[in-house]
Amino acid sequence: MQIHRETLERETAPDTDIHDLTDEVRAVIERSGVKQGQVLVFTPGSTAGVTVIEYESGAVADLRRAIDRLAPTGERYDHDARWGDGNGYSHVRAALLGPSITAPIVDGRAVLGTWQQIILCDFDNRPRTRKIVVQVMGVVVP
Amino acid sequence: MQIHRETLERETAPDTDIHDLTDEVRAVIERSGVKQGQVLVFTPGSTAGVTVIEYESGAVADLRRAIDRLAPTGERYDHDARWGDGNGYSHVRAALLGPSITAPIVDGRAVLGTWQQIILCDFDNRPRTRKIVVQVMGVVVP
Amino acid sequence: MQIHRETLERETAPDTDIHDLTDEVRAVIERSGVKQGQVLVFTPGSTAGVTVIEYESGAVADLRRAIDRLAPTGERYDHDARWGDGNGYSHVRAALLGPSITAPIVDGRAVLGTWQQIILCDFDNRPRTRKIVVQVMGVVVP
Repeated sequence: MQIHRETLERETAPDTDIHDLTDEVRAVIERSGVKQGQVLVFTPGSTAGVTVIEYESGAVADLRRAIDRLAPTGERYDHDARWGDGNGYSHVRAALLGPSITAPIVDGRAVLGTWQQIILCDFDNRPRTRKIVVQVMGVVVP
Repeated sequence: MQIHRETLERETAPDTDIHDLTDEVRAVIERSGVKQGQVLVFTPGSTAGVTVIEYESGAVADLRRAIDRLAPTGERYDHDARWGDGNGYSHVRAALLGPSITAPIVDGRAVLGTWQQIILCDFDNRPRTRKIVVQVMGVVVP
Repeated sequence: MQIHRETLERETAPDTDIHDLTDEVRAVIERSGVKQGQVLVFTPGSTAGVTVIEYESGAVADLRRAIDRLAPTGERYDHDARWGDGNGYSHVRAALLGPSITAPIVDGRAVLGTWQQIILCDFDNRPRTRKIVVQVMGVVVP
């Protein structure tokens, strides 16, 4: 059983900036040598999340609008009233989406649909440098 | 440490067709021989998701309505404007629900509540044949 | 490869009672001795969920309001019409939020942001005694 970990980094823009991580995750799996197992893609931080979507500009814009409805920017947030950092909506969005996804690895590749990409969603209200932990667990024998 | 994987298949109907996978997942765990570990239930594809619910027709209908509100069919979707396949809402729903769940295995059984079943939700706008990867990782000794 | 499991217990109040589990999860990881691996925090039961948020009263109240909009208490639920237990909204909320989170463990500690706490959300309409399974998988060598 092997555990292999790498940390990706992304510069993000404010307000639901969505990045495709799939190619980088695939490269980590390859470097790990793991043939059967799982990959965990996790973002530390309370104002970003990780999920999957078909990464094309239409679906990405649609997702952004749906997330905006979940926790609109125009509402009153107790977090902002208390701390004044103006990103109450970002915290709620991140809590609802979740910080990670896990995908099975079969024959050295993540099992994903053709149109199913792994994405980072940064919900914060200012530019950030995000870390994303990619951890591969499994066996190197086929 | 053992890794055991099987792929389930389900024929689904359009528009949030919800299937109970619990019995099949339990059978995979039994065949794996794993006594302590985890089971990952993952659906490849960008228009379906996996979660848990009490699988009875009332709660299932209630969930379907809530998901419909998250990404209503009557809205305009950029994905549809661009690609014309009419399933923009399906992509958004799948991204919000997520493609998988992971449950602990204790003494050879998935730890689930009595009324907590593992479900596949197919959000696409046409019938599909879905694959669901069930992967068990753990140890065979008690 | 080690698998270590402990079950936490929490007394919860009705209607989206939110508890910070982070310190207890950290203690389980420490007792496991695992240095590199993953921790799975899973709640059995169909009316509760697990996610992450900055655990301060403002953000917690904001999340509670957003969840209330996802499945409002004032709506008609088929689950209630059929079973009469009045917690149809609780089932929908739990299905949308999901029952677990998984975080990587690096150098004996869960990789979490400074303001990213692991929380239990109990959605039921009556007080409950909740169990939360904390399972650590990984290696004890650094």
